[in-house]
Amino acid sequence: MAVVGLTEAGCRARRETLFERLPTDVSHMLVVSPLGLAYFAAFTASPFVFRSQRAGAALVLARDGGAWLFADNLQEPFVHKAFAVEWIGPLWYRCVEEAPDRAAFLADQVRGWLSKTGVAHLAVERSHTPLAMLPDGVRIAMDIGPVLHELRRTKHADEVAQIVESLRVATAGLNAARNDVRPGWTERDLFDHVSRHINLAAGESTELYGDFVCGAGCEVGGGPPAGRIVRPGDAVLLDFSAITRGYRGDFASTFVCGGEPSDQQRDMERACLEALAETEPMLRPGASCAGIHAAVCRVFASRGWGDCFPHHTGHGLGLGHPDAPYLIPQSAESLQAGDVVTLEPGLYKAGVGGMRFEHTYVITADGARRLTTHHIGLV
Amino acid sequence: MAVVGLTEAGCRARRETLFERLPTDVSHMLVVSPLGLAYFAAFTASPFVFRSQRAGAALVLARDGGAWLFADNLQEPFVHKAFAVEWIGPLWYRCVEEAPDRAAFLADQVRGWLSKTGVAHLAVERSHTPLAMLPDGVRIAMDIGPVLHELRRTKHADEVAQIVESLRVATAGLNAARNDVRPGWTERDLFDHVSRHINLAAGESTELYGDFVCGAGCEVGGGPPAGRIVRPGDAVLLDFSAITRGYRGDFASTFVCGGEPSDQQRDMERACLEALAETEPMLRPGASCAGIHAAVCRVFASRGWGDCFPHHTGHGLGLGHPDAPYLIPQSAESLQAGDVVTLEPGLYKAGVGGMRFEHTYVITADGARRLTTHHIGLV
Repeated sequence: MAVVGLTEAGCRARRETLFERLPTDVSHMLVVSPLGLAYFAAFTASPFVFRSQRAGAALVLARDGGAWLFADNLQEPFVHKAFAVEWIGPLWYRCVEEAPDRAAFLADQVRGWLSKTGVAHLAVERSHTPLAMLPDGVRIAMDIGPVLHELRRTKHADEVAQIVESLRVATAGLNAARNDVRPGWTERDLFDHVSRHINLAAGESTELYGDFVCGAGCEVGGGPPAGRIVRPGDAVLLDFSAITRGYRGDFASTFVCGGEPSDQQRDMERACLEALAETEPMLRPGASCAGIHAAVCRVFASRGWGDCFPHHTGHGLGLGHPDAPYLIPQSAESLQAGDVVTLEPGLYKAGVGGMRFEHTYVITADGARRLTTHHIGLV
Repeated sequence: MAVVGLTEAGCRARRETLFERLPTDVSHMLVVSPLGLAYFAAFTASPFVFRSQRAGAALVLARDGGAWLFADNLQEPFVHKAFAVEWIGPLWYRCVEEAPDRAAFLADQVRGWLSKTGVAHLAVERSHTPLAMLPDGVRIAMDIGPVLHELRRTKHADEVAQIVESLRVATAGLNAARNDVRPGWTERDLFDHVSRHINLAAGESTELYGDFVCGAGCEVGGGPPAGRIVRPGDAVLLDFSAITRGYRGDFASTFVCGGEPSDQQRDMERACLEALAETEPMLRPGASCAGIHAAVCRVFASRGWGDCFPHHTGHGLGLGHPDAPYLIPQSAESLQAGDVVTLEPGLYKAGVGGMRFEHTYVITADGARRLTTHHIGLV
């Protein structure tokens, strides 16, 4: 069976890799960030249902392979989609007794279990773990936050597959918008149309965020859908991500609706496409992130658009957005195999136009593989 | 000007009320839960834009009225909508330098500020505050979680107005679905249509969650949109909430699409409407929550539907859902002025039908005011 997303083996491998980085006397780690729950157990709870709206969860992992997911009884449907965990699912509410404060209830459960189990050397996410979750006397061996932040950068195969799945559903939304948009649509129409087609492609309500603008909105580079109406000949700039199981890809496209691009728009487009063509072959392990950004700037400068590119050339992404590595002027980083990064050259000039074209890539042992499949070009 | 939602005066009043409940030597409190940020400062960050996706924030409140909101530079558009706070907005990312881990960055900012300011007696939300946010040596005076949980139950006028605003946009979605649904629509169509019309009414992308089912889905009481298709004569059960500035109302409606209700459905409907008619007048300060639930059960039993009502009669809501008070068999609570509660009698029988009708009310000094305005009834 083709890998279509996160796998149990992937979750186990990520746990093992993390434990390898911890001192050997650390026997357990406690994970509470949504990001960590997805990374280590493929656990995500939907924000679209009553049962899990604003619910929290926690995961205790043991060096010997044990994994306990704390998520109250209402979250059962999501627990069953998580991998390789024993569920500790206390009764929070069943329409019979009063329910306590949900966050305090979760903290009590975890603290009680840690106390009872006698976990002495615990690693935690210090920037996420609430005070109430830890029993008195437990020794906090170390903060796994920085290690996790570093490890997350190098994607496992099943994480790349999950990003591809995110891009699949997002592309369905983009294609629908591109095919169906007509002059008279509002930016709101664009968002809702994209959302609808992403939901259809995903088979479930899906978190979606990004830029949905037309006309003058393109000239400022993006933004949430505002009150603008697509006029004949307007550019439409869409740059969005759909989150599936915690992971997102990223892409952007700009196209002209109900008209032809102006000569200046055509010139900007050529510059952007040349920037992509120039930098795509640079994507390989060891390439300087600042160097890739500088290459885009050189292309734009050589074509007379040097002052019209105010943002990054790209960034890492996956569970976060943006994430390392950053393709920016002041990066000291180089690309590594397993990085998932975007290239997104864009040009914006008031009164003239604005556009951005963006792909997502995974860096391989000897180059890069493009994960995005959408159409690039104003027409 | 009519109050259409949270106000600065309301935020200030809530802070003062909380400080009144804390020991007088507590000079500051630290708020980090999304719920607390909305309650005390009307701060909410959109999940629909790149800038604030998964970003955190923190609020330090001083007994003397000071209020400092910690939210990184990308969250500026949302900070400007918050009330009566000094913004501490450090540079997290500007497409020039590499960005650090965002949660660690926030924790560092807050910890550094608390250290530098020399706050000694701090109250915190122990079930939310991450370990890394507190400097060594700070004295945690007390957990504000339980006090906040209690105070949140009694809604201020501006909170009721915000719930009314949530219901206004949700009702636009419900009315659109009710008017437009036709046999052949899927449950997915229902969700996307509701979402679209809520976004139009709100003027922005809006968080939406709840039950969107038809046919056999009604007989199990709800669930997220699945693969069902509306057939002529099917019931459609919609029970959802839209979140505006952190607050949500709640309602449910069931209606028959492209046909007439069966005699048994009519009988169930009469029982539900009688349960509503019986319990609405009971809504007043001092009324027993368990007593209201028992009244619904009596109506259903007297009409021969005693075994078909498996859930609560209602619950509090606002920043949480469900929240106290709970209208359930084992409640020891009574209603109080300022409670916002639902009544949602429902009946479900396999092979026969399922329906739920729900209103939201605010308890007043001598009764209750209904906040919902949607149509109730199968036809």
